[in-house]
Amino acid sequence: MQPWNFMVVRSDEVKQRVHRAFSEAHREAAEMFEGDKRETYQSLKLEGILESPVNICITCDRERTGPTVIGRTHIKTMDLYSSVCAVQNLWLAARAEQLGVGWVSIIKQQALQEALGIPDNIVPIAYLCVGYVSHFYQKPELETAQWLPRLPLEELVFFDQWDNRKSADEESLIAQIEQDRGFAQQ
Amino acid sequence: MQPWNFMVVRSDEVKQRVHRAFSEAHREAAEMFEGDKRETYQSLKLEGILESPVNICITCDRERTGPTVIGRTHIKTMDLYSSVCAVQNLWLAARAEQLGVGWVSIIKQQALQEALGIPDNIVPIAYLCVGYVSHFYQKPELETAQWLPRLPLEELVFFDQWDNRKSADEESLIAQIEQDRGFAQQ
Repeated sequence: MQPWNFMVVRSDEVKQRVHRAFSEAHREAAEMFEGDKRETYQSLKLEGILESPVNICITCDRERTGPTVIGRTHIKTMDLYSSVCAVQNLWLAARAEQLGVGWVSIIKQQALQEALGIPDNIVPIAYLCVGYVSHFYQKPELETAQWLPRLPLEELVFFDQWDNRKSADEESLIAQIEQDRGFAQQ
Repeated sequence: MQPWNFMVVRSDEVKQRVHRAFSEAHREAAEMFEGDKRETYQSLKLEGILESPVNICITCDRERTGPTVIGRTHIKTMDLYSSVCAVQNLWLAARAEQLGVGWVSIIKQQALQEALGIPDNIVPIAYLCVGYVSHFYQKPELETAQWLPRLPLEELVFFDQWDNRKSADEESLIAQIEQDRGFAQQ
């Protein structure tokens, strides 16, 4: 299953169109938050459409190999998920080359399709801004901005059944993950 | 946004339940292919539920941080996509440790939820079989089995607008990707 396309965007005109679509959605999104939260929202760096040299739109063609696709016979969203895996592969490969990648998700799908001439039967999955950055954060930006705290591992890892946190191995597994995370941040 | 949970499955009883759900869907899927295609389908290795020591189910809680979530104000599927990114991160991290990972997608979502006690409001995204393997393939298994050919890069990479394959840089970019792919396979 290769349902994806990679659209490499370098045209200033196209970037301007995408940026206008972002700006409109961004204004709408700000209205959804109140008080301090709105102020914090407005202070966040949420896109780099115009200043990054390359934007990349990854799409999914849901009809590419016909109605019956291996691995999609029972879970129809597997094609969307495959395209997301392709996005994440690109993201990590770019990061390994010291390139920053930002995923612009504050945008209306229809406006993005119009800006890039994407037909109605193709789903845009991700719009990425790619370029060298001044620095990388040690922690996710939203965690640093105290938008939401990082969730404790104990709430995220279950054993054998939903919500089962009791396991002889739980403590050692969680401890190992914490240790590995510390190693990764060194 | 951390909508995911990681369910670590090692119980033989739970694995048996998941395997029965796979087997049922697998039989149904085989019926969807005809002749040689069905024979090829039946010869493929599509799961390792019972023989892998650890199975991991990654889920998505679509209501975790309330109705208004940054990055999800305009594209509602971003939470599903975030969980898929978490799957791919785990997959690549495992591969870097020489661990094999297989994504079982031939299964009914409802049957998987029942086997793991996952509530109706939680979406199972991926069911992974994790373990050491005898070898890694040089090419994707479905390509080797001649199920479908790999698509040419020229059909997958566009410039600035949908279906625009004409670019001064196209040839050099495609050539560079081909070269990098060769390097990765060495």
